[in-house]
Amino acid sequence: MLDKATLEGQIIETVEAVKRTNPMAASVTNFVTIDFVANAQLAVGGSAAMVFLPDEGEGVAQAGGAMYLNMGTLIPVHQKTMPATALALHKAGKPWVVDPVGLGIGSLRTQILREIMPLKPTVIRCNASEAIALASLLELDFAGEAGGVRGVDSTDSVEAAASAAVALAQYTGGAVAVSGEEDLATDGETIVRSFGGSAFMPYITGTGCALGGVAAVYAACAPTPLAAAVAAANVFDVAGARAGAESQAPASFKVAFLDQLYLATAEDIAHNPMELAGA
Amino acid sequence: MLDKATLEGQIIETVEAVKRTNPMAASVTNFVTIDFVANAQLAVGGSAAMVFLPDEGEGVAQAGGAMYLNMGTLIPVHQKTMPATALALHKAGKPWVVDPVGLGIGSLRTQILREIMPLKPTVIRCNASEAIALASLLELDFAGEAGGVRGVDSTDSVEAAASAAVALAQYTGGAVAVSGEEDLATDGETIVRSFGGSAFMPYITGTGCALGGVAAVYAACAPTPLAAAVAAANVFDVAGARAGAESQAPASFKVAFLDQLYLATAEDIAHNPMELAGA
Amino acid sequence: MLDKATLEGQIIETVEAVKRTNPMAASVTNFVTIDFVANAQLAVGGSAAMVFLPDEGEGVAQAGGAMYLNMGTLIPVHQKTMPATALALHKAGKPWVVDPVGLGIGSLRTQILREIMPLKPTVIRCNASEAIALASLLELDFAGEAGGVRGVDSTDSVEAAASAAVALAQYTGGAVAVSGEEDLATDGETIVRSFGGSAFMPYITGTGCALGGVAAVYAACAPTPLAAAVAAANVFDVAGARAGAESQAPASFKVAFLDQLYLATAEDIAHNPMELAGA
Repeated sequence: MLDKATLEGQIIETVEAVKRTNPMAASVTNFVTIDFVANAQLAVGGSAAMVFLPDEGEGVAQAGGAMYLNMGTLIPVHQKTMPATALALHKAGKPWVVDPVGLGIGSLRTQILREIMPLKPTVIRCNASEAIALASLLELDFAGEAGGVRGVDSTDSVEAAASAAVALAQYTGGAVAVSGEEDLATDGETIVRSFGGSAFMPYITGTGCALGGVAAVYAACAPTPLAAAVAAANVFDVAGARAGAESQAPASFKVAFLDQLYLATAEDIAHNPMELAGA
Repeated sequence: MLDKATLEGQIIETVEAVKRTNPMAASVTNFVTIDFVANAQLAVGGSAAMVFLPDEGEGVAQAGGAMYLNMGTLIPVHQKTMPATALALHKAGKPWVVDPVGLGIGSLRTQILREIMPLKPTVIRCNASEAIALASLLELDFAGEAGGVRGVDSTDSVEAAASAAVALAQYTGGAVAVSGEEDLATDGETIVRSFGGSAFMPYITGTGCALGGVAAVYAACAPTPLAAAVAAANVFDVAGARAGAESQAPASFKVAFLDQLYLATAEDIAHNPMELAGA
Repeated sequence: MLDKATLEGQIIETVEAVKRTNPMAASVTNFVTIDFVANAQLAVGGSAAMVFLPDEGEGVAQAGGAMYLNMGTLIPVHQKTMPATALALHKAGKPWVVDPVGLGIGSLRTQILREIMPLKPTVIRCNASEAIALASLLELDFAGEAGGVRGVDSTDSVEAAASAAVALAQYTGGAVAVSGEEDLATDGETIVRSFGGSAFMPYITGTGCALGGVAAVYAACAPTPLAAAVAAANVFDVAGARAGAESQAPASFKVAFLDQLYLATAEDIAHNPMELAGA
């Protein structure tokens, strides 16, 4: 099990490398929050590029430092683009983040996830219900049962998804980040709980997607998948708490939140309240 | 004809039920304002989910409390998704809101509206030119003639569309909400004019789309289609007036407007200035 | 070579005509920044309409005062929509702006640009790397060589693209606007360098796309392509400088920037610091 000082050091190393090298983490992501994802990636010091065509996904997979694949709003071309891009990432050995948004709506999300999960994404970013649904889809062995999926929102608590998250991390060999009132990240051995954020977050769309995009930026520079996942969770907790303290309502909170993503230092992010435990 | 006190009571009931139960109103909506629609829906207390594929439209139609179908930016898949989703809503008896954005541009908008209008949407949300164009498309009997459509903006006044709106409401058996400097809603028997908003609204894109999405959230809990339509018009009038009073320019107005959507109480919304008249 | 006073007079004429006549400049543009483009177009006094289908592109080409074609995030339907729209604009003699975003990613961008560039767009809006890549694609004769494309960001300085920009303008007979720390616009005879903006601009996505959309609005009323290109560059420099002076971070900068686009007067825009030189 990882100790806290080591993890903090890895987070500082990751965040500073991103601010110094401006890594490109391209995305195949949904149409709702695509602008928020890009702006969050730029705010933390990364570079963004969004694509939808199969050969463009392969191209940016090779050209960039990492990638973000988000299932949020599929159109027919995603059926080819998602697997082609995941395969290109796998072959190139590039880090990539998968966000199984809305798993359970329609059939294509399930089909794509069945195809790309065996390629072992570096980080899975999801809410509690999606973690449980994805672990179930992969027929992994874990404790607990799903409260049920409702659209793109979670009906399960993060704690209820802990066992599923550990099982998913052990399956991929990477990390899993489950977002909620408290955030949980795991590499299958260590579980990291991060605290912060704001009660306004459920009132704006896309904080989860933006976190996934930022995790991809950090994954381009992080020494381990878990460091990327926790760095992303922590910067969202820090920025959310600071923005929440100065906002009275969700839209001004969103502006303040993006500002605080930009303003957060590596030290701020590494020292956000967190607890480590064995998986 | 409905009396004002009854309508105010229905609006309070609707808004409070939404804040209490957080109903999901999924959308098939345009790419321009999709983020604004979702954030407006969340701000008033609803839950959002956006989809584009036919089976996903059918799935969220069954899973949610209501839906929003907006014709704003069609791509080929909409040809199947819009009719399949409308049919699923009709079969499940779920409330749904149609927004015939840009009717007259290209051929697919017309084709889709011909297919789905006989399924009788609960609420039609449109601007004055679209109301007139839609009533003409359906060959309804109404007074007045179109000033002509120009892109997605209205070239007609709301008053010029009153007769078309009444004819549309009588055709669907639901309600019609026409947005403009003053807002008009009708169920074919009562006409409700709501006052408020801001001169900045034409300088930001998507207030009409966001209003349609919010009308769908309210339709999930409203006792009548008219109550949903007027509640949506009123919360936009209240939030627009308040945001306009504190803003010097459109982008800060938009942030303040979304904040005020969140802050508006059921009493604020029910008591927004409005006038009722017989159709 | 154009003298400065003449250009300033043309810019004032253009900006005032836009504020007076609210011209529609429709767009086929990318999914990331589509909302930002529309809001920027509205802020300067234009009207926006976004489409994706071939017959809708042809329709708004004929109905509007100008158009904006941006290659940012292609999906399959763009293969037909972009050439059909460009042809309709060419036949109707309407001004149009092309933005070759991310030229070099995948094959479809290249294919579309090969098809539409011979139709001679009124204004090309691009970053330095895209100017060099586009001049190379068209096998134009120019000095300098590319630093290489990386995703959608430029790796070349604006000055390094001056010769490519002049060659492109001479090829189209229109104007070319290259955005960067300093902005360069040319009609192949005169080179105009504009100064202003903000260091926050690279931290928000879509300022280049928004500039292209605004150039299309101005092109609907401008006496020359160069006047449209410089008016757009200047209003972005003015608004960027003013917003930058009052902002501490990127997201509040973006809100302030859109506000300042709305507040900038024709005089402000015409008198933004600029230098003219022979090409």
